[in-house]
Amino acid sequence: MNDLFLRACRREPVERPPVWMMRQAGRYLPEYRAVRQRADFLTMVGTPELAVEVTLQPVDLLGVDAAIIFSDILVIPQAMGMGLSVEDGIGPRFHQPLRAPAEFDRLRDPVPERDLGYVLDALRLARRELEGRVPLIGFAGAPWTLMSYMVEGEGSKAFTHAKRLLVQEPARAHALLARLAQAVGAFLVAQVRAGAQAVQLFDSWASALGPRDFREFALPYLAEAVRIARGAGVPVIAFAPGAGWALEEIAAAAAADVIGIDWQTDAADARRRLGDRQVALQGNLDPCWLYAPPAVIRTRTHEMLAAFGGRGHIANLGHGINPDVPVANAKAFIDAVKEWRAP
Amino acid sequence: MNDLFLRACRREPVERPPVWMMRQAGRYLPEYRAVRQRADFLTMVGTPELAVEVTLQPVDLLGVDAAIIFSDILVIPQAMGMGLSVEDGIGPRFHQPLRAPAEFDRLRDPVPERDLGYVLDALRLARRELEGRVPLIGFAGAPWTLMSYMVEGEGSKAFTHAKRLLVQEPARAHALLARLAQAVGAFLVAQVRAGAQAVQLFDSWASALGPRDFREFALPYLAEAVRIARGAGVPVIAFAPGAGWALEEIAAAAAADVIGIDWQTDAADARRRLGDRQVALQGNLDPCWLYAPPAVIRTRTHEMLAAFGGRGHIANLGHGINPDVPVANAKAFIDAVKEWRAP
Repeated sequence: MNDLFLRACRREPVERPPVWMMRQAGRYLPEYRAVRQRADFLTMVGTPELAVEVTLQPVDLLGVDAAIIFSDILVIPQAMGMGLSVEDGIGPRFHQPLRAPAEFDRLRDPVPERDLGYVLDALRLARRELEGRVPLIGFAGAPWTLMSYMVEGEGSKAFTHAKRLLVQEPARAHALLARLAQAVGAFLVAQVRAGAQAVQLFDSWASALGPRDFREFALPYLAEAVRIARGAGVPVIAFAPGAGWALEEIAAAAAADVIGIDWQTDAADARRRLGDRQVALQGNLDPCWLYAPPAVIRTRTHEMLAAFGGRGHIANLGHGINPDVPVANAKAFIDAVKEWRAP
Repeated sequence: MNDLFLRACRREPVERPPVWMMRQAGRYLPEYRAVRQRADFLTMVGTPELAVEVTLQPVDLLGVDAAIIFSDILVIPQAMGMGLSVEDGIGPRFHQPLRAPAEFDRLRDPVPERDLGYVLDALRLARRELEGRVPLIGFAGAPWTLMSYMVEGEGSKAFTHAKRLLVQEPARAHALLARLAQAVGAFLVAQVRAGAQAVQLFDSWASALGPRDFREFALPYLAEAVRIARGAGVPVIAFAPGAGWALEEIAAAAAADVIGIDWQTDAADARRRLGDRQVALQGNLDPCWLYAPPAVIRTRTHEMLAAFGGRGHIANLGHGINPDVPVANAKAFIDAVKEWRAP
């Protein structure tokens, strides 16, 4: 078994850094688009056979060193009772955003095996079909990111509804965030029991918060979810894109095994700032650099790897891969990592 | 004359920090919306009498310590020959985004008095009508921000067209950025000759670039535009929201008199990092905090002022004011600054 990824998570010596890509089971792959033509996004997420089919594609086609289960961070709010649609070109949208107090009260606390069994089934099936080739990663959205989506109803530039809640009704926000931290933690533990060999928390909308709000409304709940997930005994990755300024605080508060680094953060700077912490780093090539000619991708990738310095590093993009990236360019990134050796 | 703003720009002693708000001549004011009902956005920008009417509104209604001319950063690309529309709820859009080499070649270098005379007329008229009550600020978009709009054609989350250009045709990008730096610099000098008593450069899409690209494609051209503008002898403010990590580099390269601080950056941290530079700071209340009850706005504003420490600080938001903020809340922010005294 290729266990480079798990060894890098634990900062053990590796021949070379492992590599995978966020959103690697995605639209840039013609094989993914073929499945997507037969089923809409939420059907794919909800049907273990389809989810596993696309989960395995980048392993087979690109040779990445880890598989991440095909799913969505919004399955938790959905399991709490919020109706969800995903429309092409628009993205996910809740039928009724969370606004009135009664809507908060109506949410139920999800029980993973009962309410999210289809994700757990997909993990079990993926583990079987992977046959040990590469490790399998589970994931969930972090509490702030889930709450901001639930309140906003859809993706947003400024998240003004969610941020209005923080200043107008902080107690209501804290109550929901605390519930979400428990739900997220329990879901990640269940994912590990179902076969996930590592889990990643995505605080995708960390960028919507300034330092004060991040410290009050995001970080403590991210940390609590990490704490619960770590109880399951596998590496936990915390990724808060847009909060590069907070790397030290995330490392101190959240005690994750791995910290994700976004593409806006200088790799050498991240390594320097976190160098004396017992933490591995994951990232962080700018996804837009995959539009470059393969020779440039190779150079930039090698520069990035050198900046992270090898050990305790998992090569990845600093954000999900864009849907219009040519497969050959994604492959150029993967291959550039594989040929690199620490000096 | 209230010259608090100009004295703060020069880091001279002030009784209290001056205050104004980015986008203060904007839709949150009923008086602005009344003008907007009579004329569309670009007509307002292009008609000095209308532009001046809304420029003066926040001075009269809220008592801000500076007026900023009502205009748009995209007037330069428009003057270079790019057709522009601004639609309600969508924002600005170029009729034909810059993609093919021939489209780059077809751009003309604008001559401010010939091609942007309406902005200069508005400045002259605003100076007269202000009668010295408060200083008048001119502004322009920074080269990277203008180019990314021109290539993208409209606002974007990821600016993938513009970023594709950077990795696929860096020489073409550099050539246009160099032309834009000259155009922006000349326009700012012309604005000062027409009456602007300070000028601000907005590198609004700095957030779309990681450190390496920012250093190559944004910072040198921002610095060149600042250099040209400083020749006109008034304070120059450089604001690159989303590039809080780069404050030291902006201060070192761009030699602006004032550096704008976005709301994502910790105020005390910004002051500490730039404390030994000969530079004033402007910012940085989170615009979403204006949704809070006035008592909370007051507390947060006083905390922000204390973190900046008084002298060499211009109080502002860390981004433009949102259109749905109640006027009373905007006033609570202005008043909170006015009542504060450095300890």
